[in-house]
Amino acid sequence: MLVKLKIKYIQSLGQKKFRDAEGVFIAEGPKIIKELLASENTRLINVFAVEEWMETNRSLIKNFSSDDIVKISDSELERISFLQTPNQVLGIFAKPIFNADFDDAKIMLLLDEIQDPGNMGTLIRTADWFGIKKIICSNNSADVFNPKVVQSSMGSIAHVKIVYEDLRSFIHGHPEVPVYATTLHGDDIFKIEKIKNGFILIGNESKGICEELLSLATHQITIPKSGDAESLNAAVAAAIVMAVLV
Amino acid sequence: MLVKLKIKYIQSLGQKKFRDAEGVFIAEGPKIIKELLASENTRLINVFAVEEWMETNRSLIKNFSSDDIVKISDSELERISFLQTPNQVLGIFAKPIFNADFDDAKIMLLLDEIQDPGNMGTLIRTADWFGIKKIICSNNSADVFNPKVVQSSMGSIAHVKIVYEDLRSFIHGHPEVPVYATTLHGDDIFKIEKIKNGFILIGNESKGICEELLSLATHQITIPKSGDAESLNAAVAAAIVMAVLV
Repeated sequence: MLVKLKIKYIQSLGQKKFRDAEGVFIAEGPKIIKELLASENTRLINVFAVEEWMETNRSLIKNFSSDDIVKISDSELERISFLQTPNQVLGIFAKPIFNADFDDAKIMLLLDEIQDPGNMGTLIRTADWFGIKKIICSNNSADVFNPKVVQSSMGSIAHVKIVYEDLRSFIHGHPEVPVYATTLHGDDIFKIEKIKNGFILIGNESKGICEELLSLATHQITIPKSGDAESLNAAVAAAIVMAVLV
Repeated sequence: MLVKLKIKYIQSLGQKKFRDAEGVFIAEGPKIIKELLASENTRLINVFAVEEWMETNRSLIKNFSSDDIVKISDSELERISFLQTPNQVLGIFAKPIFNADFDDAKIMLLLDEIQDPGNMGTLIRTADWFGIKKIICSNNSADVFNPKVVQSSMGSIAHVKIVYEDLRSFIHGHPEVPVYATTLHGDDIFKIEKIKNGFILIGNESKGICEELLSLATHQITIPKSGDAESLNAAVAAAIVMAVLV
């Protein structure tokens, strides 16, 4: 059973200030929980699950103590879930802290003020598909541990290392690495060779990449347009660039 | 000033049954309203705008009567807006009805049960970027006149013709047209030539393309994966396919 205080505690983790203070984040649903339990990037604090999940995940559960994995009722899950349709299990995990080293990641995404949680989650998922292991977010980007981001990353938050940094200093710290910036008037991405190392810089949903960062780009690249839309969604543009260049 | 009854009427248009009964839809914000007022695909029923919008759009307004364009206060806009942050202007437009003819569209998107409004809007916007002029949605797809879809299409709903049809009969009706279906085990899209005509079939967010439709595909295609994600977001996968094939 869940005491009131625990329910309030879990609900508070919807807010960044409480996640930061506690150093934890929330994930929901069998798929993401399974990926996070298997991930080296984080460690389990608590899982709260209904009987159905307990039954189908016995082999997974046996590595943990009964303090770690708490059985709850459907109505308790409804009270703590951040989803419109609660999905069997909710977990609290330690927020991992990574460094911005470039050694283990040949190509990185650099995100300049991505604001929409759905876009952020989709960017993480797409990077994971194309084997990009590290993402550097500007300090004014959306929090990747927001429950909506975790959810829309579809488990990829367990595979990709994410760091918040001042992007200007970060780029200055790696003068030898080419920086590819997506703009509306750059070189056609289909005329560029695949890259072996580099930073792919993606800008804010409405403002694009800020001037200061754009001036640090070594390559301005563009997805050729043949229709009437003024722009592409930021996560879509990044996905096309990754598909073509990585 | 807005009477109570009008406010209730506008609020009711958030629901599909009332949009269908009235044959109208809602759009918000200066950019989308401008695109829709200029579009041949729809016609204006009413615009409700605050003074700021009236002032900056005088030349646009002068083509319409004062019955068409109604000045309202900020607090009135807040009451009728479907946005978290209301944005100067809300318009009611006639829902356009198109046929599924293939003559004016060489390449079409076929959407099989796309459910998420954000994905649907992004698909319309991306199709518009790549010059795809018509989209056929299965009858169980999300309503493209849902305010969230209209908003995330970023004005492209004014450029792209959208039709709801039974996809099985539609494909059967065009036996000469190649059907490209995105699956996890098809041919590498980067080894396929650009296409001049064809249907690009995109499946539901979690179930993919239904078996029956998949059996009608002439080409199964795949976006090669080099990382750990299990799948790509539907709108992202469609965007990569359009970028590479169209």
